[in-house]
Amino acid sequence: MRTPTAASSRTLPSLRESYQRIRDVTEALAAPLSPEDQMVQSMPDVSPTKWHRAHVTWFFETFLLEERLAGYTAFHPSYRYLFNSYYEAVGSRQPRAERGLLSRPSTLEVAAYREHVDAAMHELIEMGLAPEVTELLELGLHHEQQHQELLLMDIKHVLSKNPLRPAYAPAPPPTVGEVPGLSFFEHPGGLVEIGTDGPGFSFDNERPRHRVHLEPFALAERPVVCGEWLEFIEDGGYERPDLWLSDGWAALRAEPRRAPLYWFEDETGFELFTLNGPRAIDPAEPVCHLSYYEADAFARWMGCRLPTEEEWEALVTTEGLHAPWREAAALHPAAPGALATPGLFGEVWEWTSSAYLPYRGFRTAPGAVGEYNGKFMVGQHVLRGGCCATPPGHVRATYRNFFPPAARWAFSGLRLASDR
Amino acid sequence: MRTPTAASSRTLPSLRESYQRIRDVTEALAAPLSPEDQMVQSMPDVSPTKWHRAHVTWFFETFLLEERLAGYTAFHPSYRYLFNSYYEAVGSRQPRAERGLLSRPSTLEVAAYREHVDAAMHELIEMGLAPEVTELLELGLHHEQQHQELLLMDIKHVLSKNPLRPAYAPAPPPTVGEVPGLSFFEHPGGLVEIGTDGPGFSFDNERPRHRVHLEPFALAERPVVCGEWLEFIEDGGYERPDLWLSDGWAALRAEPRRAPLYWFEDETGFELFTLNGPRAIDPAEPVCHLSYYEADAFARWMGCRLPTEEEWEALVTTEGLHAPWREAAALHPAAPGALATPGLFGEVWEWTSSAYLPYRGFRTAPGAVGEYNGKFMVGQHVLRGGCCATPPGHVRATYRNFFPPAARWAFSGLRLASDR
Amino acid sequence: MRTPTAASSRTLPSLRESYQRIRDVTEALAAPLSPEDQMVQSMPDVSPTKWHRAHVTWFFETFLLEERLAGYTAFHPSYRYLFNSYYEAVGSRQPRAERGLLSRPSTLEVAAYREHVDAAMHELIEMGLAPEVTELLELGLHHEQQHQELLLMDIKHVLSKNPLRPAYAPAPPPTVGEVPGLSFFEHPGGLVEIGTDGPGFSFDNERPRHRVHLEPFALAERPVVCGEWLEFIEDGGYERPDLWLSDGWAALRAEPRRAPLYWFEDETGFELFTLNGPRAIDPAEPVCHLSYYEADAFARWMGCRLPTEEEWEALVTTEGLHAPWREAAALHPAAPGALATPGLFGEVWEWTSSAYLPYRGFRTAPGAVGEYNGKFMVGQHVLRGGCCATPPGHVRATYRNFFPPAARWAFSGLRLASDR
Amino acid sequence: MRTPTAASSRTLPSLRESYQRIRDVTEALAAPLSPEDQMVQSMPDVSPTKWHRAHVTWFFETFLLEERLAGYTAFHPSYRYLFNSYYEAVGSRQPRAERGLLSRPSTLEVAAYREHVDAAMHELIEMGLAPEVTELLELGLHHEQQHQELLLMDIKHVLSKNPLRPAYAPAPPPTVGEVPGLSFFEHPGGLVEIGTDGPGFSFDNERPRHRVHLEPFALAERPVVCGEWLEFIEDGGYERPDLWLSDGWAALRAEPRRAPLYWFEDETGFELFTLNGPRAIDPAEPVCHLSYYEADAFARWMGCRLPTEEEWEALVTTEGLHAPWREAAALHPAAPGALATPGLFGEVWEWTSSAYLPYRGFRTAPGAVGEYNGKFMVGQHVLRGGCCATPPGHVRATYRNFFPPAARWAFSGLRLASDR
Repeated sequence: MRTPTAASSRTLPSLRESYQRIRDVTEALAAPLSPEDQMVQSMPDVSPTKWHRAHVTWFFETFLLEERLAGYTAFHPSYRYLFNSYYEAVGSRQPRAERGLLSRPSTLEVAAYREHVDAAMHELIEMGLAPEVTELLELGLHHEQQHQELLLMDIKHVLSKNPLRPAYAPAPPPTVGEVPGLSFFEHPGGLVEIGTDGPGFSFDNERPRHRVHLEPFALAERPVVCGEWLEFIEDGGYERPDLWLSDGWAALRAEPRRAPLYWFEDETGFELFTLNGPRAIDPAEPVCHLSYYEADAFARWMGCRLPTEEEWEALVTTEGLHAPWREAAALHPAAPGALATPGLFGEVWEWTSSAYLPYRGFRTAPGAVGEYNGKFMVGQHVLRGGCCATPPGHVRATYRNFFPPAARWAFSGLRLASDR
Repeated sequence: MRTPTAASSRTLPSLRESYQRIRDVTEALAAPLSPEDQMVQSMPDVSPTKWHRAHVTWFFETFLLEERLAGYTAFHPSYRYLFNSYYEAVGSRQPRAERGLLSRPSTLEVAAYREHVDAAMHELIEMGLAPEVTELLELGLHHEQQHQELLLMDIKHVLSKNPLRPAYAPAPPPTVGEVPGLSFFEHPGGLVEIGTDGPGFSFDNERPRHRVHLEPFALAERPVVCGEWLEFIEDGGYERPDLWLSDGWAALRAEPRRAPLYWFEDETGFELFTLNGPRAIDPAEPVCHLSYYEADAFARWMGCRLPTEEEWEALVTTEGLHAPWREAAALHPAAPGALATPGLFGEVWEWTSSAYLPYRGFRTAPGAVGEYNGKFMVGQHVLRGGCCATPPGHVRATYRNFFPPAARWAFSGLRLASDR
Repeated sequence: MRTPTAASSRTLPSLRESYQRIRDVTEALAAPLSPEDQMVQSMPDVSPTKWHRAHVTWFFETFLLEERLAGYTAFHPSYRYLFNSYYEAVGSRQPRAERGLLSRPSTLEVAAYREHVDAAMHELIEMGLAPEVTELLELGLHHEQQHQELLLMDIKHVLSKNPLRPAYAPAPPPTVGEVPGLSFFEHPGGLVEIGTDGPGFSFDNERPRHRVHLEPFALAERPVVCGEWLEFIEDGGYERPDLWLSDGWAALRAEPRRAPLYWFEDETGFELFTLNGPRAIDPAEPVCHLSYYEADAFARWMGCRLPTEEEWEALVTTEGLHAPWREAAALHPAAPGALATPGLFGEVWEWTSSAYLPYRGFRTAPGAVGEYNGKFMVGQHVLRGGCCATPPGHVRATYRNFFPPAARWAFSGLRLASDR
Repeated sequence: MRTPTAASSRTLPSLRESYQRIRDVTEALAAPLSPEDQMVQSMPDVSPTKWHRAHVTWFFETFLLEERLAGYTAFHPSYRYLFNSYYEAVGSRQPRAERGLLSRPSTLEVAAYREHVDAAMHELIEMGLAPEVTELLELGLHHEQQHQELLLMDIKHVLSKNPLRPAYAPAPPPTVGEVPGLSFFEHPGGLVEIGTDGPGFSFDNERPRHRVHLEPFALAERPVVCGEWLEFIEDGGYERPDLWLSDGWAALRAEPRRAPLYWFEDETGFELFTLNGPRAIDPAEPVCHLSYYEADAFARWMGCRLPTEEEWEALVTTEGLHAPWREAAALHPAAPGALATPGLFGEVWEWTSSAYLPYRGFRTAPGAVGEYNGKFMVGQHVLRGGCCATPPGHVRATYRNFFPPAARWAFSGLRLASDR
């Protein structure tokens, strides 16, 4: 979340327009899904689509309308409980693993809830906003964009657990590319600045800008692709304990999987489950749905390593790299070179070797929104770069995503690094 | 299931009518529920309403249409997997705890599945049925009636887990009766016959009729009511280990509950969750949603015991007792005397002290339907008498229901017995 | 436990002698084990040898000395907590699964505890005992005999978990017999009397004597032997769901075992772990360490069934059968015919199809010893006949042992029955 | 482990003497414990004393004798399996949670194993060692020293689980000091060097020496003491979610504890369990047995933070600080000022905010010993400084210890830091 001193230059029309545009994207993402689809919680980490739609609305209701709009009446007295995710300061809440039990409120009622809050939000915006309120509004919009990606990640997991293997959207024509060559950017190291103090929006965990010393290093020009992963499998990568962190090896032993999540094996080889349904694996595509353990083991197999998050950010900034231009989130990562305007990053989240920890000088915001990021800073690793399912414009070079090392349901891949 | 030698006297019109009537009841029970409600699996024991609707249809498709109707084409190739409950001989199946993940097929598709199978079943019935096919058809209809009660039990659990505490149906006017007096029937004991060989329908576990010796005993004229249960609570019944079986005491220590399932306590006392929503407890109503441990502890507290299933059946047969006449299943047990035509049994299932074991001479049917009852004959106790939610006409004096001793989500109560 | 009205005809010298003899047997059974061996708890069901030695002593201290010997001082104030098994009325206790953590008191201290209690017990006995005290003393001695068998069962499990597979005692010469023929006793059925009211010692669960009606049946003249079990395995008995109870099949799927407990398979076939260490399987020996599920599946495979406990007792009584004469418990069941004085029963405990439930008219003793048997009467099955490891003289035709259906660490086998 | 290029200047007599001295310390630490005490595994993280004694011996046998001493015969063929901790390259091993089942080999046999290996090691040492063998020997000795501390940590946990609360050693006279004042060292920051390339021994995870940029910071001159922790408790520190990381708060909710491990509360307040038995809390002593979550929450409550490991090392190096001089490990942390020669660090391990990750340029050793440290570099946090129970001379400023954030059975405390 932005610090109190950061100035806001958002105009009224642009706020109004941003608000409506981002809210509409959520509805468009939910549109292909039936009320039944929007109910399912396929594991405790996953939230139902309907819950996402309500929770992002709850955020505006709780942190803006109830605090700032005189006379605002909550849409329903129980929603404060039902749609709170993890804000202890707001009170008790529906247990995380039981979000899928909520057939009521219905999707129709959730749609009405969204309309009720949207009307009140427009009223609030028209009144003109103090800078700190504008910041909360922007936080709410970026929060909703995060849940747009979560919505796609989660529904992919939901559909993958259905033996009918239904598609979220019709399949585009299949592609079978070749594994591209592998070349590296080089960075000379030195004292670099990481993070941001800038006036534009950023989350609290990207702040403040601070200095870090780097040694010379190299970073691959593209993420690892499926063709390379198939070689890793064929070389026995999943069978060699020397390649794996101890926790990762224990996780492997505990279940029969020997491939990324959503790779299903039968007699004829691997098939991939995507949001467009099942299809063959394209060797040219970035591999994704990897755990940190898998990414780390692959890098070791290649004689490389994962980059630190500071290396990643320094290189990207130096080279002026960016995410691809897209009109909307895509449902699957594109092969390098498959895009008209290819980006260096932005197809798959890239695991870094950096644990998710506070930056030097990190401060949380006062009040309940201070629970946004800081309290999760243990036991996770940072991922950088955004993915195909990230809303266009949402990521930036300083953006820090994070997951526990065993998590695989994000669009998580890797990019190789090495010392120089 | 009926043994092969039992004769069938069902006529074509009666079969046609029975089939359609029973199928219609299922649809009527599901009608108040939205597609979202019909999705939820609130614990592994519970099945979603939609799944019940499909599974009972699968039973007809698998055991009648695929075996007996030439040229029948399965509605969907995956349904054999999705809607198999536990028949090993039919093949693998959707894991029990993952029935709630199936947003597809939708409720609309399940309705179409039901229509497809109904049309084919009518075709089959019109062709005239061999006696053993009639028996399978009758088994399928009784099977569907069992799931009608399960549907109500399960949706009650589903709705109870929703913090909004929604009602399945509008609430009737509340009642507050008085605890009725407690008198006992007496039975002289002797050599009695239990179970059935009769020509009418019965499940395999009710067969064969066999002789059992009983000593004289007494059985209460009505089940235990809520007013009595409140006394048990007030007397510290849940705090006295000497009243409890060891497993029951351990289960009590593992969670904070000190009341039957669906009794919720706040500062002002207990409230009851029912299919008509939350309301006050009526002391005159039969207490229900008890575990075997609770029923057994209460009987000990009263200086009584639970009856054996043979005592129950012998007494009921001797006294000519029966279930109340109803047009349809009721949503909550009525107080003794509250019904125009009261029945001796049929408001709450009555736990017996008998473990669920095969009768002397028990035989399973050949093939997959032989898995119907026999393979569950360990680790459970018999309940007798049916309950308000049992379809009218479904139970009889020889009927054996069964649950593990810790289960509480059935409409399970108790009736006191003692030696004489 | 004996009911209050049962008379005791034990004389002072015989009590003194019985007490010392039974106490000495426990010490003799522990003698081959080091203090380290006597520490191990290999699963929650298992108790360390040292704990058995102390617990049976605690029984005398708690129920006799503290109640009946004026001026008696407890050996140690904490032992009441440490060595209470499950008597709620005596107070809180060391958690069952943490008995193996008790390095203190040491085996030496436990030996001193035994001596302290023995001295006081002799003092008490010399004073002359009221009948109800004699009954408690006899109960204590039978209790200690039960723990003598548990001690052997438990240490067998402990040693089997050690990769060194150590022997409790040196191995006798190996035997390889032939599978004996299988013939059956027949019983005409009718009204029989089961259980006991007799003046001799019996546990409360064997009382009272009561009438039961039986239909004609047959019971095998010997238990099932290993050679027959090998045929069951070779015939795919562990792979056929139609042979198994549902819970048993689920238990099988959850682990890779396809043989009785203590049968270890390598490339060359099965090896048996015994208290004399590992050795080849003798086809002529009774098979043991079976679960109820295994026993039941085997009987079904043979086209037979398990007997009820009443059938077992009626047949044994009618035929005048008994356990073999032995000077001391044996460490492994002998093959039928291998004993100079063979017994009909007494080599392996025989699973019956009867759930462990109270007899008609069952009453528990008042006070804490009333917790002896009754509170376990749910979720278990009765086994009859005793086993090689049972102290000679401890079992009788009316004796009821009981275990949960999945338990396998007792010397549990089966004997086939069928309708006639 | 030392990198291959590091030179070794150890002489033969010094190696011989070091070997014997360190081996003797292990035996001296085990001496107060009975064979029974040496058996107990009170949780999976804990190893029995006997196992520690054997495992450190196995290390010498496996990595030195079997590789380097011609004609060496393993003491026992099964010990390779029994006493392997986690070296995948050495083969399979006794499951970690089942180390407490090993009554065999006995403590006497383990003592004989130690003697057998010691004799062979002396033979090997006398032959003169190649530099890389000397390095392995030194690694083995430092490995044994690590297990000396683990032995004390583990036996403390074992004894604490015994309701008798036995002492490992007699209690010294109690102390009740005052909470000392709190002052801070300051460090100007800048580019500093961390880790070591030096010729003296170091573990692989301390290497290589590398540059890190620091901002100015302050570090407390002493660790947090018990008197301060009591204030934290009294101020509701365990009840305020805003102070806690999310995972830490969830862990708190899951159990009733509201104090460091080994603080036991009764009506009169807290009592401390120590290796000298239970006693009152001395407010002047460093608080220990904290989780990372507790350390982090306390620092937040104080308006401070934990130091990074680089800050800690830079400050300690700049100020020339060191551990106290001791003849042997102590059993409890001393209060600052209580020691004749107080050290800045060395009473309690100090949690740092740094995740345990490889240093820039980190390389594992080839072969099985390469599994020593690197494969644990995920999901843990670094602790610095050593503790009272660390063998004197074992720690240094560059030493990196590590535990998962929830672990509390190490002597883990904290030292406050803040930005400047």
